[in-house]
Amino acid sequence: MYDLVIIGAGVAGLTAGLYGSRYGLDTLVLEKNQINGQLSFVDTIENFPGFGAIEGIELMNKIEKHALENGLSIERDNVKNLVVDANIKILHTEKRKIESRTVIVATGANPSLLNVPGEKEFTGKGVSYCATCDGPLFRNKDVAVVGGGNSAIAEALVLSSIANKVYVIHRRDTLKAEMALQKRALKTDNIIFLWNSEIKKVFGEKLVEGLHLKNLTNNELFDLSVNGLFVYVGVRPNTEQFDINKDENGFIVTETNMQTSVPGVFAAGDCRLTPLRQAITASSDGSIAAYSANNYIKEI
Amino acid sequence: MYDLVIIGAGVAGLTAGLYGSRYGLDTLVLEKNQINGQLSFVDTIENFPGFGAIEGIELMNKIEKHALENGLSIERDNVKNLVVDANIKILHTEKRKIESRTVIVATGANPSLLNVPGEKEFTGKGVSYCATCDGPLFRNKDVAVVGGGNSAIAEALVLSSIANKVYVIHRRDTLKAEMALQKRALKTDNIIFLWNSEIKKVFGEKLVEGLHLKNLTNNELFDLSVNGLFVYVGVRPNTEQFDINKDENGFIVTETNMQTSVPGVFAAGDCRLTPLRQAITASSDGSIAAYSANNYIKEI
Repeated sequence: MYDLVIIGAGVAGLTAGLYGSRYGLDTLVLEKNQINGQLSFVDTIENFPGFGAIEGIELMNKIEKHALENGLSIERDNVKNLVVDANIKILHTEKRKIESRTVIVATGANPSLLNVPGEKEFTGKGVSYCATCDGPLFRNKDVAVVGGGNSAIAEALVLSSIANKVYVIHRRDTLKAEMALQKRALKTDNIIFLWNSEIKKVFGEKLVEGLHLKNLTNNELFDLSVNGLFVYVGVRPNTEQFDINKDENGFIVTETNMQTSVPGVFAAGDCRLTPLRQAITASSDGSIAAYSANNYIKEI
Repeated sequence: MYDLVIIGAGVAGLTAGLYGSRYGLDTLVLEKNQINGQLSFVDTIENFPGFGAIEGIELMNKIEKHALENGLSIERDNVKNLVVDANIKILHTEKRKIESRTVIVATGANPSLLNVPGEKEFTGKGVSYCATCDGPLFRNKDVAVVGGGNSAIAEALVLSSIANKVYVIHRRDTLKAEMALQKRALKTDNIIFLWNSEIKKVFGEKLVEGLHLKNLTNNELFDLSVNGLFVYVGVRPNTEQFDINKDENGFIVTETNMQTSVPGVFAAGDCRLTPLRQAITASSDGSIAAYSANNYIKEI
Protein backbone atom coordinates (compact mmCIF):
# COMPACT_ATOMS: atom_id res chain seq x y z
CA MET A 1 0.00 0.00 0.00
CA TYR A 2 1.55 3.27 -1.16
CA ASP A 3 0.70 6.67 0.31
CA LEU A 4 0.76 8.32 -3.10
CA VAL A 5 0.85 6.97 -6.65
CA ILE A 6 1.37 9.52 -9.42
CA ILE A 7 0.38 8.60 -12.97
CA GLY A 8 2.75 10.25 -15.44
CA ALA A 9 6.37 11.41 -15.19
CA GLY A 10 6.17 14.75 -16.96
CA VAL A 11 6.89 18.04 -15.21
CA ALA A 12 3.67 17.85 -13.16
CA GLY A 13 4.18 14.24 -12.07
CA LEU A 14 7.85 14.63 -11.20
CA THR A 15 7.22 17.80 -9.19
CA ALA A 16 4.40 16.03 -7.35
CA GLY A 17 6.88 13.19 -6.73
CA LEU A 18 9.52 15.56 -5.43
CA TYR A 19 7.06 17.16 -3.03
CA GLY A 20 5.47 13.84 -2.00
CA SER A 21 8.87 12.37 -1.20
CA ARG A 22 9.85 15.45 0.78
CA TYR A 23 6.59 15.20 2.76
CA GLY A 24 7.76 11.71 3.74
CA LEU A 25 5.04 9.94 1.75
CA ASP A 26 5.78 6.52 0.29
CA THR A 27 5.52 7.77 -3.29
CA LEU A 28 5.61 5.99 -6.67
CA VAL A 29 5.50 7.53 -10.13
CA LEU A 30 4.26 5.37 -13.02
CA GLU A 31 5.16 6.30 -16.60
CA LYS A 32 4.01 4.29 -19.59
CA ASN A 33 6.51 5.73 -22.06
CA GLN A 34 10.28 5.52 -22.17
CA ILE A 35 10.53 9.29 -22.16
CA ASN A 36 9.21 11.72 -19.56
CA GLY A 37 6.45 13.94 -20.79
CA GLN A 38 5.88 16.28 -23.71
CA LEU A 39 8.63 18.64 -22.56
CA SER A 40 11.18 15.99 -23.55
CA PHE A 41 10.17 16.61 -27.15
CA VAL A 42 10.60 20.37 -26.96
CA ASP A 43 13.80 21.61 -28.58
CA THR A 44 14.34 24.71 -26.42
CA ILE A 45 12.25 26.07 -23.57
CA GLU A 46 12.88 29.74 -22.85
CA ASN A 47 10.36 30.53 -20.14
CA PHE A 48 10.98 28.21 -17.19
CA PRO A 49 12.17 30.88 -14.75
CA GLY A 50 15.83 30.70 -13.77
CA PHE A 51 17.10 28.59 -16.64
CA GLY A 52 17.23 31.08 -19.52
CA ALA A 53 17.12 28.98 -22.69
CA ILE A 54 17.45 25.23 -22.05
CA GLU A 55 16.72 22.07 -24.05
CA GLY A 56 13.46 20.41 -23.01
CA ILE A 57 15.14 17.07 -22.41
CA GLU A 58 17.86 18.69 -20.30
CA LEU A 59 15.32 20.45 -18.07
CA MET A 60 13.39 17.17 -17.67
CA ASN A 61 16.60 15.35 -16.75
CA LYS A 62 17.39 17.97 -14.11
CA ILE A 63 13.89 17.75 -12.61
CA GLU A 64 13.97 13.94 -12.63
CA LYS A 65 17.41 13.91 -10.96
CA HIS A 66 16.18 16.40 -8.36
CA ALA A 67 13.18 14.17 -7.56
CA LEU A 68 15.22 10.94 -7.48
CA GLU A 69 17.73 12.53 -5.09
CA ASN A 70 14.83 13.17 -2.74
CA GLY A 71 13.91 9.47 -2.68
CA LEU A 72 11.27 9.21 -5.41
CA SER A 73 10.68 5.86 -7.15
CA ILE A 74 9.77 5.83 -10.85
CA GLU A 75 8.54 2.70 -12.65
CA ARG A 76 7.77 2.07 -16.32
CA ASP A 77 4.21 0.76 -16.33
CA ASN A 78 0.89 1.59 -17.96
CA VAL A 79 -2.17 2.25 -15.79
CA LYS A 80 -5.21 0.59 -17.39
CA ASN A 81 -7.76 1.84 -14.90
CA LEU A 82 -8.35 3.23 -11.45
CA VAL A 83 -10.93 1.81 -9.02
CA VAL A 84 -11.80 3.66 -5.84
CA ASP A 85 -12.88 1.46 -2.93
CA ALA A 86 -13.66 3.89 -0.10
CA ASN A 87 -10.29 5.12 1.14
CA ILE A 88 -8.26 2.72 -1.02
CA LYS A 89 -7.37 3.50 -4.62
CA ILE A 90 -6.65 0.44 -6.74
CA LEU A 91 -4.65 0.82 -9.94
CA HIS A 92 -4.71 -1.99 -12.48
CA THR A 93 -1.57 -1.66 -14.58
CA GLU A 94 -0.08 -3.74 -17.38
CA LYS A 95 2.23 -5.47 -14.92
CA ARG A 96 0.36 -5.62 -11.61
CA LYS A 97 -2.26 -4.32 -9.19
CA ILE A 98 -1.22 -1.41 -7.00
CA GLU A 99 -2.98 -0.01 -3.93
CA SER A 100 -2.55 3.53 -2.70
CA ARG A 101 -4.08 5.97 -0.24
CA THR A 102 -4.04 8.79 -2.80
CA VAL A 103 -3.53 9.21 -6.53
CA ILE A 104 -2.40 12.16 -8.63
CA VAL A 105 -3.36 12.01 -12.32
CA ALA A 106 -0.60 13.77 -14.26
CA THR A 107 -1.03 12.05 -17.59
CA GLY A 108 -0.59 15.19 -19.66
CA ALA A 109 -1.94 15.81 -23.10
CA ASN A 110 -1.04 14.81 -26.63
CA PRO A 111 -1.17 16.93 -29.77
CA SER A 112 -4.62 17.36 -31.25
CA LEU A 113 -5.25 16.00 -34.71
CA LEU A 114 -6.03 18.36 -37.54
CA ASN A 115 -8.77 15.96 -38.69
CA VAL A 116 -8.39 16.29 -42.45
CA PRO A 117 -8.23 13.58 -45.14
CA GLY A 118 -4.73 12.15 -45.55
CA GLU A 119 -3.57 13.10 -42.05
CA LYS A 120 -3.79 9.61 -40.51
CA GLU A 121 -2.65 7.87 -43.70
CA PHE A 122 0.54 9.94 -43.90
CA THR A 123 1.39 10.06 -40.18
CA GLY A 124 5.03 8.94 -40.01
CA LYS A 125 5.23 9.43 -43.79
CA GLY A 126 5.54 13.20 -43.74
CA VAL A 127 2.88 14.17 -41.19
CA SER A 128 4.42 14.71 -37.75
CA TYR A 129 3.50 16.15 -34.37
CA CYS A 130 7.09 16.69 -33.20
CA ALA A 131 9.56 18.89 -35.08
CA THR A 132 12.29 18.11 -32.58
CA CYS A 133 11.87 14.36 -33.22
CA ASP A 134 11.31 14.34 -36.98
CA GLY A 135 12.74 17.65 -38.19
CA PRO A 136 16.12 16.19 -39.21
CA LEU A 137 14.35 13.95 -41.78
CA PHE A 138 13.49 17.08 -43.79
CA ARG A 139 16.93 18.59 -44.31
CA ASN A 140 16.84 21.02 -47.28
CA LYS A 141 13.24 20.05 -48.04
CA ASP A 142 10.13 22.22 -47.89
CA VAL A 143 7.79 21.72 -44.95
CA ALA A 144 4.65 23.28 -43.50
CA VAL A 145 3.66 23.98 -39.91
CA VAL A 146 -0.01 24.42 -39.08
CA GLY A 147 -1.01 26.49 -36.03
CA GLY A 148 -0.50 29.94 -34.54
CA GLY A 149 0.38 29.35 -30.89
CA ASN A 150 3.71 29.14 -29.10
CA SER A 151 4.32 25.52 -30.08
CA ALA A 152 3.72 26.16 -33.78
CA ILE A 153 6.02 29.17 -33.95
CA ALA A 154 8.75 27.72 -31.72
CA GLU A 155 8.87 24.56 -33.81
CA ALA A 156 8.79 26.54 -37.09
CA LEU A 157 11.93 28.27 -35.82
CA VAL A 158 13.53 24.89 -35.08
CA LEU A 159 12.63 23.67 -38.58
CA SER A 160 13.89 26.87 -40.26
CA SER A 161 17.50 25.90 -39.57
CA ILE A 162 17.00 22.39 -41.01
CA ALA A 163 14.52 22.66 -43.86
CA ASN A 164 14.74 24.70 -47.07
CA LYS A 165 11.45 26.57 -46.67
CA VAL A 166 9.02 26.52 -43.73
CA TYR A 167 5.44 27.56 -44.48
CA VAL A 168 3.37 28.53 -41.43
CA ILE A 169 -0.29 27.95 -42.21
CA HIS A 170 -2.74 29.74 -39.96
CA ARG A 171 -6.49 30.24 -40.13
CA ARG A 172 -6.32 33.79 -38.79
CA ASP A 173 -4.28 36.85 -39.70
CA THR A 174 -2.62 37.18 -36.30
CA LEU A 175 -0.72 34.74 -34.11
CA LYS A 176 -1.42 33.73 -30.53
CA ALA A 177 2.28 33.01 -29.91
CA GLU A 178 4.40 35.20 -27.61
CA MET A 179 5.64 38.36 -29.37
CA ALA A 180 9.24 37.28 -28.62
CA LEU A 181 8.72 34.20 -30.81
CA GLN A 182 6.64 36.02 -33.44
CA LYS A 183 9.30 38.67 -34.01
CA ARG A 184 11.98 36.06 -34.46
CA ALA A 185 9.85 34.05 -36.91
CA LEU A 186 8.88 37.14 -38.94
CA LYS A 187 12.57 38.05 -39.26
CA THR A 188 13.56 34.57 -40.45
CA ASP A 189 14.01 34.59 -44.22
CA ASN A 190 12.92 31.03 -44.96
CA ILE A 191 9.75 31.14 -42.84
CA ILE A 192 6.80 32.10 -45.06
CA PHE A 193 3.40 32.87 -43.51
CA LEU A 194 0.22 31.77 -45.24
CA TRP A 195 -2.44 33.75 -43.36
CA ASN A 196 -6.19 33.05 -43.37
CA SER A 197 -5.52 29.61 -44.82
CA GLU A 198 -6.96 26.25 -43.97
CA ILE A 199 -5.66 22.79 -44.87
CA LYS A 200 -8.34 20.71 -46.63
CA LYS A 201 -6.30 17.60 -47.51
CA VAL A 202 -2.84 16.08 -47.31
CA PHE A 203 -1.85 14.34 -50.57
CA GLY A 204 0.96 12.24 -52.02
CA GLU A 205 1.87 8.81 -53.30
CA LYS A 206 3.80 6.90 -50.64
CA LEU A 207 4.99 10.04 -48.84
CA VAL A 208 3.54 13.50 -48.42
CA GLU A 209 3.90 15.57 -51.60
CA GLY A 210 1.64 18.50 -50.87
CA LEU A 211 -1.40 20.12 -49.27
CA HIS A 212 -4.73 21.27 -50.65
CA LEU A 213 -5.42 24.65 -49.06
CA LYS A 214 -8.28 27.10 -48.94
CA ASN A 215 -7.83 30.84 -48.66
CA LEU A 216 -10.50 31.84 -46.13
CA THR A 217 -10.60 35.45 -47.32
CA ASN A 218 -11.66 34.74 -50.93
CA ASN A 219 -12.48 31.00 -50.64
CA GLU A 220 -9.99 30.15 -53.40
CA LEU A 221 -8.42 26.69 -53.36
CA PHE A 222 -4.74 26.17 -54.05
CA ASP A 223 -2.01 23.53 -53.68
CA LEU A 224 1.27 23.82 -51.83
CA SER A 225 4.16 21.43 -52.53
CA VAL A 226 5.77 20.26 -49.29
CA ASN A 227 7.39 17.02 -48.10
CA GLY A 228 6.37 17.44 -44.47
CA LEU A 229 3.50 18.75 -42.37
CA PHE A 230 3.94 19.52 -38.67
CA VAL A 231 0.68 19.83 -36.77
CA TYR A 232 0.45 22.17 -33.74
CA VAL A 233 -3.24 22.91 -33.29
CA GLY A 234 -3.69 22.34 -29.56
CA VAL A 235 -3.75 19.35 -27.25
CA ARG A 236 -6.13 16.63 -26.07
CA PRO A 237 -5.82 15.27 -22.55
CA ASN A 238 -4.90 11.64 -21.79
CA THR A 239 -7.81 11.04 -19.46
CA GLU A 240 -10.05 8.43 -21.16
CA GLN A 241 -9.35 5.74 -18.54
CA PHE A 242 -10.43 7.85 -15.56
CA ASP A 243 -14.00 7.93 -14.32
CA ILE A 244 -13.87 11.44 -12.82
CA ASN A 245 -15.49 14.76 -13.64
CA LYS A 246 -14.14 16.29 -16.87
CA ASP A 247 -15.12 19.11 -19.20
CA GLU A 248 -16.45 18.51 -22.73
CA ASN A 249 -12.91 18.19 -24.09
CA GLY A 250 -11.83 15.63 -21.49
CA PHE A 251 -9.84 17.98 -19.26
CA ILE A 252 -10.16 17.02 -15.57
CA VAL A 253 -12.04 19.53 -13.43
CA THR A 254 -10.35 20.33 -10.09
CA GLU A 255 -10.68 22.58 -7.09
CA THR A 256 -7.91 25.14 -6.51
CA ASN A 257 -6.17 22.52 -4.32
CA MET A 258 -6.14 20.07 -7.32
CA GLN A 259 -8.82 17.81 -5.77
CA THR A 260 -10.92 16.05 -8.45
CA SER A 261 -14.53 14.92 -8.09
CA VAL A 262 -13.22 11.77 -6.34
CA PRO A 263 -11.87 12.35 -2.79
CA GLY A 264 -8.21 11.39 -2.55
CA VAL A 265 -7.72 11.62 -6.30
CA PHE A 266 -5.98 14.79 -7.53
CA ALA A 267 -4.96 16.04 -10.96
CA ALA A 268 -2.04 18.20 -12.10
CA GLY A 269 -0.61 19.62 -15.30
CA ASP A 270 -1.81 19.56 -18.89
CA CYS A 271 -4.54 16.93 -18.28
CA ARG A 272 -6.34 19.40 -16.02
CA LEU A 273 -8.77 22.19 -16.94
CA THR A 274 -6.56 25.25 -16.46
CA PRO A 275 -6.21 28.69 -18.10
CA LEU A 276 -2.57 28.17 -19.17
CA ARG A 277 -0.49 25.06 -19.99
CA GLN A 278 3.19 25.72 -19.41
CA ALA A 279 6.06 23.83 -17.78
CA ILE A 280 5.99 26.26 -14.85
CA THR A 281 2.22 25.93 -14.33
CA ALA A 282 2.35 22.11 -14.53
CA SER A 283 5.15 22.09 -11.98
CA SER A 284 3.17 24.29 -9.61
CA ASP A 285 0.10 22.06 -10.03
CA GLY A 286 2.24 19.06 -9.04
CA SER A 287 3.44 20.72 -5.83
CA ILE A 288 -0.10 21.71 -4.83
CA ALA A 289 -1.50 18.24 -5.63
CA ALA A 290 1.17 16.58 -3.45
CA TYR A 291 0.50 19.05 -0.66
CA SER A 292 -3.21 18.27 -0.83
CA ALA A 293 -2.57 14.50 -0.97
CA ASN A 294 -0.47 14.82 2.17
CA ASN A 295 -3.26 16.75 3.93
CA TYR A 296 -5.82 14.18 2.79
CA ILE A 297 -3.77 11.31 4.24
CA LYS A 298 -3.39 13.11 7.56
CA GLU A 299 -7.16 13.67 7.75
CA ILE A 300 -8.47 10.17 6.92
CA MET B 1 1.31 54.53 -20.70
CA TYR B 2 2.59 51.05 -19.96
CA ASP B 3 0.83 47.87 -21.02
CA LEU B 4 1.62 46.15 -17.74
CA VAL B 5 2.97 47.37 -14.41
CA ILE B 6 3.87 44.71 -11.86
CA ILE B 7 4.14 45.68 -8.20
CA GLY B 8 6.83 43.61 -6.50
CA ALA B 9 9.98 41.91 -7.79
CA GLY B 10 9.78 38.59 -5.96
CA VAL B 11 9.44 35.27 -7.77
CA ALA B 12 5.82 36.02 -8.77
CA GLY B 13 6.56 39.53 -10.03
CA LEU B 14 9.69 38.59 -11.96
CA THR B 15 8.00 35.61 -13.62
CA ALA B 16 5.08 37.84 -14.58
CA GLY B 17 7.68 40.28 -15.96
CA LEU B 18 9.42 37.53 -17.94
CA TYR B 19 6.14 36.42 -19.48
CA GLY B 20 4.85 39.96 -20.05
CA SER B 21 8.06 40.91 -21.87
CA ARG B 22 7.90 37.76 -23.97
CA TYR B 23 4.30 38.57 -24.90
CA GLY B 24 5.67 41.85 -26.26
CA LEU B 25 3.97 43.99 -23.61
CA ASP B 26 5.65 47.21 -22.52
CA THR B 27 6.25 45.93 -18.98
CA LEU B 28 7.62 47.57 -15.83
CA VAL B 29 8.29 45.99 -12.45
CA LEU B 30 8.33 48.25 -9.38
CA GLU B 31 10.08 47.08 -6.21
CA LYS B 32 10.20 49.20 -3.07
CA ASN B 33 13.03 47.32 -1.40
CA GLN B 34 16.67 46.94 -2.39
CA ILE B 35 16.30 43.17 -2.40
CA ASN B 36 13.91 41.06 -4.47
CA GLY B 37 11.31 39.26 -2.41
CA GLN B 38 11.26 36.95 0.60
CA LEU B 39 13.14 34.21 -1.26
CA SER B 40 16.26 36.40 -1.14
CA PHE B 41 16.27 35.87 2.63
CA VAL B 42 16.02 32.08 2.43
CA ASP B 43 19.31 30.32 3.05
CA THR B 44 18.68 27.24 0.91
CA ILE B 45 15.66 26.29 -1.18
CA GLU B 46 15.46 22.58 -1.95
CA ASN B 47 12.16 22.29 -3.79
CA PHE B 48 12.25 24.54 -6.85
CA PRO B 49 12.23 21.78 -9.47
CA GLY B 50 15.40 21.39 -11.48
CA PHE B 51 17.78 23.21 -9.17
CA GLY B 52 18.37 20.67 -6.40
CA ALA B 53 19.53 22.67 -3.38
CA ILE B 54 20.25 26.33 -4.17
CA GLU B 55 20.67 29.53 -2.12
CA GLY B 56 17.54 31.69 -2.20
CA ILE B 57 19.48 34.75 -3.34
CA GLU B 58 21.18 32.76 -6.12
CA LEU B 59 17.84 31.49 -7.46
CA MET B 60 16.41 35.02 -7.36
CA ASN B 61 19.46 36.35 -9.23
CA LYS B 62 19.01 33.71 -11.92
CA ILE B 63 15.31 34.50 -12.33
CA GLU B 64 16.00 38.27 -12.41
CA LYS B 65 18.75 37.79 -15.03
CA HIS B 66 16.42 35.57 -17.11
CA ALA B 67 13.72 38.28 -17.04
CA LEU B 68 16.12 41.15 -17.79
CA GLU B 69 17.54 39.25 -20.77
CA ASN B 70 14.00 39.14 -22.14
CA GLY B 71 13.71 42.91 -22.02
CA LEU B 72 12.06 43.52 -18.64
CA SER B 73 12.56 46.89 -16.88
CA ILE B 74 12.80 46.97 -13.08
CA GLU B 75 12.67 50.21 -11.07
CA ARG B 76 13.12 50.86 -7.36
CA ASP B 77 9.99 52.74 -6.32
CA ASN B 78 7.21 52.40 -3.77
CA VAL B 79 3.58 52.29 -4.92
CA LYS B 80 1.46 54.36 -2.53
CA ASN B 81 -1.88 53.61 -4.14
CA LEU B 82 -3.69 52.42 -7.21
CA VAL B 83 -6.60 54.30 -8.78
CA VAL B 84 -8.66 52.69 -11.53
CA ASP B 85 -10.19 55.10 -14.05
CA ALA B 86 -12.16 52.91 -16.48
CA ASN B 87 -9.52 51.17 -18.61
CA ILE B 88 -6.59 53.16 -17.21
CA LYS B 89 -4.83 52.16 -14.01
CA ILE B 90 -3.03 55.02 -12.27
CA LEU B 91 -0.26 54.23 -9.77
CA HIS B 92 0.89 56.95 -7.42
CA THR B 93 4.41 56.08 -6.34
CA GLU B 94 6.96 57.82 -4.14
CA LYS B 95 8.69 59.22 -7.23
CA ARG B 96 5.99 59.75 -9.82
CA LYS B 97 2.59 58.97 -11.32
CA ILE B 98 2.46 55.97 -13.67
CA GLU B 99 -0.33 54.94 -16.05
CA SER B 100 -0.85 51.42 -17.27
CA ARG B 101 -3.40 49.32 -19.11
CA THR B 102 -3.06 46.46 -16.61
CA VAL B 103 -1.55 45.86 -13.18
CA ILE B 104 -0.33 42.72 -11.43
CA VAL B 105 -0.12 42.92 -7.64
CA ALA B 106 2.77 40.70 -6.56
CA THR B 107 3.61 42.38 -3.29
CA GLY B 108 4.15 39.17 -1.37
CA ALA B 109 3.79 38.68 2.34
CA ASN B 110 5.83 39.43 5.43
CA PRO B 111 6.31 37.29 8.52
CA SER B 112 3.43 37.36 10.97
CA LEU B 113 4.04 38.75 14.43
CA LEU B 114 3.79 36.47 17.43
CA ASN B 115 1.92 39.23 19.27
CA VAL B 116 3.33 38.75 22.76
CA PRO B 117 4.68 41.34 25.21
CA GLY B 118 8.32 42.19 24.55
CA GLU B 119 8.25 41.17 20.88
CA LYS B 120 8.12 44.67 19.38
CA GLU B 121 10.37 46.14 22.06
CA PHE B 122 13.13 43.61 21.35
CA THR B 123 12.83 43.45 17.56
CA GLY B 124 16.37 43.99 16.30
CA LYS B 125 17.62 43.40 19.85
CA GLY B 126 17.32 39.64 19.81
CA VAL B 127 13.91 39.14 18.19
CA SER B 128 14.26 38.44 14.45
CA TYR B 129 12.18 37.21 11.52
CA CYS B 130 15.13 36.16 9.37
CA ALA B 131 17.66 33.56 10.48
CA THR B 132 19.62 33.97 7.27
CA CYS B 133 19.99 37.72 7.92
CA ASP B 134 20.56 37.75 11.67
CA GLY B 135 21.76 34.24 12.50
CA PRO B 136 25.48 35.15 12.41
CA LEU B 137 24.91 37.56 15.34
CA PHE B 138 24.20 34.57 17.58
CA ARG B 139 27.38 32.54 17.11
CA ASN B 140 27.78 30.10 20.02
CA LYS B 141 24.77 31.61 21.80
CA ASP B 142 21.46 29.92 22.63
CA VAL B 143 18.47 30.83 20.50
CA ALA B 144 14.83 29.81 20.09
CA VAL B 145 12.74 29.35 16.96
CA VAL B 146 8.95 29.50 17.26
CA GLY B 147 6.79 27.68 14.70
CA GLY B 148 6.30 24.24 13.21
CA GLY B 149 6.16 24.76 9.45
CA ASN B 150 8.79 24.50 6.74
CA SER B 151 10.22 27.96 7.40
CA ALA B 152 10.64 27.33 11.14
CA ILE B 153 12.40 24.00 10.70
CA ALA B 154 14.54 25.05 7.72
CA GLU B 155 15.74 28.12 9.61
CA ALA B 156 16.34 26.09 12.81
CA LEU B 157 18.66 23.92 10.72
CA VAL B 158 20.46 27.02 9.45
CA LEU B 159 20.85 28.29 13.02
CA SER B 160 22.04 24.91 14.34
CA SER B 161 25.38 25.32 12.59
CA ILE B 162 25.87 28.84 14.02
CA ALA B 163 24.33 28.89 17.49
CA ASN B 164 25.18 26.78 20.54
CA LYS B 165 21.67 25.45 21.17
CA VAL B 166 18.52 25.94 19.08
CA TYR B 167 15.21 25.44 20.89
CA VAL B 168 12.21 24.87 18.61
CA ILE B 169 9.08 26.00 20.43
CA HIS B 170 5.82 24.67 19.04
CA ARG B 171 2.25 24.74 20.34
CA ARG B 172 1.49 21.24 19.09
CA ASP B 173 3.20 17.87 19.44
CA THR B 174 3.71 17.37 15.69
CA LEU B 175 5.23 19.54 12.99
CA LYS B 176 3.66 20.72 9.74
CA ALA B 177 7.08 20.87 8.04
CA GLU B 178 8.04 18.43 5.27
CA MET B 179 9.25 15.09 6.65
CA ALA B 180 12.59 15.60 4.85
CA LEU B 181 13.22 18.68 7.01
CA GLN B 182 11.76 17.14 10.20
CA LYS B 183 14.04 14.11 10.02
CA ARG B 184 17.11 16.25 9.59
CA ALA B 185 16.12 18.49 12.51
CA LEU B 186 15.33 15.57 14.82
CA LYS B 187 18.76 14.09 14.08
CA THR B 188 20.58 17.36 14.82
CA ASP B 189 22.12 17.18 18.31
CA ASN B 190 21.86 20.86 19.22
CA ILE B 191 18.23 21.27 18.14
CA ILE B 192 15.96 20.73 21.15
CA PHE B 193 12.19 20.53 20.69
CA LEU B 194 9.86 22.06 23.27
CA TRP B 195 6.50 20.57 22.30
CA ASN B 196 3.08 21.86 23.40
CA SER B 197 4.66 25.09 24.50
CA GLU B 198 3.57 28.67 24.06
CA ILE B 199 5.59 31.86 24.43
CA LYS B 200 3.91 34.29 26.85
CA LYS B 201 6.57 37.01 27.00
CA VAL B 202 10.02 38.00 25.76
CA PHE B 203 12.17 39.48 28.51
CA GLY B 204 15.57 41.09 29.03
CA GLU B 205 17.34 44.33 29.92
CA LYS B 206 18.66 45.96 26.77
CA LEU B 207 18.78 42.73 24.74
CA VAL B 208 16.75 39.53 24.88
CA GLU B 209 17.70 37.36 27.85
CA GLY B 210 14.91 34.82 27.86
CA LEU B 211 11.32 33.74 27.31
CA HIS B 212 8.41 33.08 29.64
CA LEU B 213 6.79 29.89 28.41
CA LYS B 214 3.66 27.93 29.20
CA ASN B 215 3.43 24.16 28.88
CA LEU B 216 0.00 23.65 27.29
CA THR B 217 -0.27 20.05 28.55
CA ASN B 218 -0.10 20.85 32.27
CA ASN B 219 -0.38 24.68 32.14
CA GLU B 220 2.91 25.06 34.03
CA LEU B 221 4.90 28.24 33.45
CA PHE B 222 8.65 28.17 33.01
CA ASP B 223 11.53 30.35 31.78
CA LEU B 224 14.04 29.61 29.04
CA SER B 225 17.33 31.52 28.80
CA VAL B 226 18.08 32.51 25.21
CA ASN B 227 19.73 35.47 23.50
CA GLY B 228 17.67 35.28 20.35
CA LEU B 229 14.12 34.49 19.23
CA PHE B 230 13.32 33.74 15.58
CA VAL B 231 9.62 34.01 14.74
CA TYR B 232 8.17 31.79 11.96
CA VAL B 233 4.44 31.65 12.63
CA GLY B 234 3.02 32.36 9.18
CA VAL B 235 2.75 35.37 6.94
CA ARG B 236 0.58 38.46 6.43
CA PRO B 237 0.06 39.86 2.94
CA ASN B 238 1.27 43.30 1.86
CA THR B 239 -2.06 44.42 0.47
CA GLU B 240 -3.25 47.32 2.69
CA GLN B 241 -2.93 49.93 -0.08
CA PHE B 242 -5.16 48.08 -2.56
CA ASP B 243 -8.91 48.60 -2.68
CA ILE B 244 -9.79 45.16 -4.07
CA ASN B 245 -11.58 42.11 -2.74
CA LYS B 246 -9.61 40.30 -0.01
CA ASP B 247 -10.29 37.62 2.58
CA GLU B 248 -10.42 38.34 6.31
CA ASN B 249 -6.63 38.05 6.56
CA GLY B 250 -5.97 40.48 3.71
CA PHE B 251 -5.12 37.90 1.04
CA ILE B 252 -6.37 39.00 -2.41
CA VAL B 253 -9.17 36.85 -3.83
CA THR B 254 -8.70 35.88 -7.49
CA GLU B 255 -10.24 33.79 -10.23
CA THR B 256 -8.20 30.84 -11.55
CA ASN B 257 -6.79 33.22 -14.20
CA MET B 258 -5.50 35.55 -11.41
CA GLN B 259 -8.11 38.24 -12.14
CA THR B 260 -9.02 40.23 -9.02
CA SER B 261 -12.36 41.93 -8.32
CA VAL B 262 -11.13 44.88 -10.44
CA PRO B 263 -11.00 44.19 -14.22
CA GLY B 264 -7.47 44.55 -15.56
CA VAL B 265 -5.94 44.15 -12.10
CA PHE B 266 -4.44 40.73 -11.38
CA ALA B 267 -2.67 39.23 -8.36
CA ALA B 268 0.07 36.61 -8.10
CA GLY B 269 2.14 34.91 -5.42
CA ASP B 270 2.09 35.08 -1.63
CA CYS B 271 -0.25 38.11 -1.48
CA ARG B 272 -3.00 36.01 -3.06
CA LEU B 273 -5.47 33.64 -1.39
CA THR B 274 -4.00 30.26 -2.41
CA PRO B 275 -3.73 26.78 -0.87
CA LEU B 276 0.09 26.69 -0.94
CA ARG B 277 2.77 29.41 -0.85
CA GLN B 278 5.97 28.19 -2.47
CA ALA B 279 8.48 29.64 -4.92
CA ILE B 280 7.17 27.32 -7.64
CA THR B 281 3.51 28.26 -7.04
CA ALA B 282 4.30 32.00 -6.98
CA SER B 283 6.19 31.63 -10.24
CA SER B 284 3.27 29.83 -11.86
CA ASP B 285 0.88 32.52 -10.62
CA GLY B 286 3.07 35.15 -12.26
CA SER B 287 2.98 33.41 -15.63
CA ILE B 288 -0.81 33.03 -15.53
CA ALA B 289 -1.33 36.65 -14.43
CA ALA B 290 0.80 37.93 -17.34
CA TYR B 291 -1.05 35.65 -19.76
CA SER B 292 -4.37 37.02 -18.50
CA ALA B 293 -3.13 40.62 -18.64
CA ASN B 294 -2.12 40.05 -22.28
CA ASN B 295 -5.57 38.63 -23.07
CA TYR B 296 -7.24 41.55 -21.29
CA ILE B 297 -5.29 44.10 -23.35
CA LYS B 298 -6.22 42.34 -26.60
CA GLU B 299 -9.89 42.38 -25.64
CA ILE B 300 -10.34 46.02 -24.54
